[in-house]
Amino acid sequence: MSILVVGSVAFDSIQTPFGKADDILGGSASYFSTSASFFTDVNLVAVIGDDFPQEHIDFLESRNVNLAGLQKTEGKTFRWKGRYEYDLNEAHTLETHLNVFESFKPVLPESYRDAEYVFLANIDPELQLEVLKQVENPKLVACDTMNFWIDGKKQELIKTLAKVDILVINEAEVRQLADEPNLIKAAAIVRGFGPKTLVVKRGEYGVLMFGEGSVFSVPAYPLEEVFDPTGAGDTFAGGFIGYLAATRNLDEQNLRKATVFGSVMASFTVEKFSLDRLKEIDYTEISDRYRKIKLLTDFADID
Amino acid sequence: MSILVVGSVAFDSIQTPFGKADDILGGSASYFSTSASFFTDVNLVAVIGDDFPQEHIDFLESRNVNLAGLQKTEGKTFRWKGRYEYDLNEAHTLETHLNVFESFKPVLPESYRDAEYVFLANIDPELQLEVLKQVENPKLVACDTMNFWIDGKKQELIKTLAKVDILVINEAEVRQLADEPNLIKAAAIVRGFGPKTLVVKRGEYGVLMFGEGSVFSVPAYPLEEVFDPTGAGDTFAGGFIGYLAATRNLDEQNLRKATVFGSVMASFTVEKFSLDRLKEIDYTEISDRYRKIKLLTDFADID
Repeated sequence: MSILVVGSVAFDSIQTPFGKADDILGGSASYFSTSASFFTDVNLVAVIGDDFPQEHIDFLESRNVNLAGLQKTEGKTFRWKGRYEYDLNEAHTLETHLNVFESFKPVLPESYRDAEYVFLANIDPELQLEVLKQVENPKLVACDTMNFWIDGKKQELIKTLAKVDILVINEAEVRQLADEPNLIKAAAIVRGFGPKTLVVKRGEYGVLMFGEGSVFSVPAYPLEEVFDPTGAGDTFAGGFIGYLAATRNLDEQNLRKATVFGSVMASFTVEKFSLDRLKEIDYTEISDRYRKIKLLTDFADID
Repeated sequence: MSILVVGSVAFDSIQTPFGKADDILGGSASYFSTSASFFTDVNLVAVIGDDFPQEHIDFLESRNVNLAGLQKTEGKTFRWKGRYEYDLNEAHTLETHLNVFESFKPVLPESYRDAEYVFLANIDPELQLEVLKQVENPKLVACDTMNFWIDGKKQELIKTLAKVDILVINEAEVRQLADEPNLIKAAAIVRGFGPKTLVVKRGEYGVLMFGEGSVFSVPAYPLEEVFDPTGAGDTFAGGFIGYLAATRNLDEQNLRKATVFGSVMASFTVEKFSLDRLKEIDYTEISDRYRKIKLLTDFADID
């Protein structure tokens, strides 16, 4: 079962304590779709400028990502420049050039409109809602957002969330959206806005998933080299939704497995710049790391 | 099997966003021994001033804590005053009055010297080593430390660590002690100083335990009300060492169970000021919360 993702395709320029790279392939839709492509096919909606090289198109197509919804517009592709210090949990934005992304109006090709699994990456919540209006009868709608929209378009975001089944956001954003410092209380408030399932990304501390009367915790896979955390969240979402779409099962146990697969995928992305690490791996490495997370968290119950 | 603990007994004055309390019972040895007392007997070594009320003595004795090693000296008991903001992971020290603790020389009563399980709470690493010289043939030595000693007495601390089986410290302190920002690499460096097992406390993010070729992760129990985090680390250590001493089993699986029991105990302590919550609970509540952490972390393996 293929997934619909709407988000950004971008060029990133990144400095970390371990290296530096300019104009590498980035953007939420790139990370999401490459990650999800290990589990199922992906239909992508995004916009690029006329400076976007064929090489990246070829790569995404090689991953079975359908690019019928990738609009090519006059102008330059979205560019982001950021820096990380040793605290890799925090990105410092140096430059943002929205370019063609500024006037992005997501339009779904006819062939995408019967999408069953939808991921609305971090874009304007009003655009997220526009996308949903173009989808006939989705089985599962998941979305991401960020502090910028919580600050500037909170009411629009809450309107969108009413139509969303799973919200995947950062810990600080959960607290900000709920206006509540305690995460457990904040999660309950945010679930009250609509999403039955809330997936809270905590960077190197892993993920907490809140459902009806249940909480699930999975740690990040412990890595000796976290090279560049850019894209970890969207890669997580790609593995998470990818696994759900591939298995067509939304029960609690399967949501938990999906969370672990998402964590596994994110752990690969951060090992190299851009999608470089995802380009190297296969399903054997993914399942191997899944089992390692199982061992990492395993302990005996008491009588 | 009883445990020997050497540490502080103190009065704390604490402000949190949720309340304020003055001169309440605190100190590493108080938290540790009360927590461990749910699993086994404890022999305590610490110092108090002549202002220390009988009420607290009676309480510790009611928990089967042996106070033969509690020195009473002329002067005032150690006092600490601190404040927490909404970020409860960080304590802001307002005042520290060492008082009688400044000249504390731990002396083990004859009856303590055959101790098999030893916990050296956060005191001067030279004193920690002095204590070990007074113990005949310990089966397990665990210790804590803090940034103050890593800054000021790093070589002395490393000398002590050579005699230690399990080090229980905060995440930032592991990085500081190893002089390495990556936690996984830092853990390997610190284990190289002596402790075969390193238990890393991450506050609301739980605990990571590093052993020979293994890592174990357990999340903190999710609480809607974290009232006062003071003593969480020592309470964790009390449950952890208490369970190990009670079961007399140091294999990996039992160390993992001990880590979960430690996390359970810490989750109670932070729900109220001082030892107030530990005074209310019984083993049924402890085992109930253990099972809840099991449910919180449980997910299916893949074929």
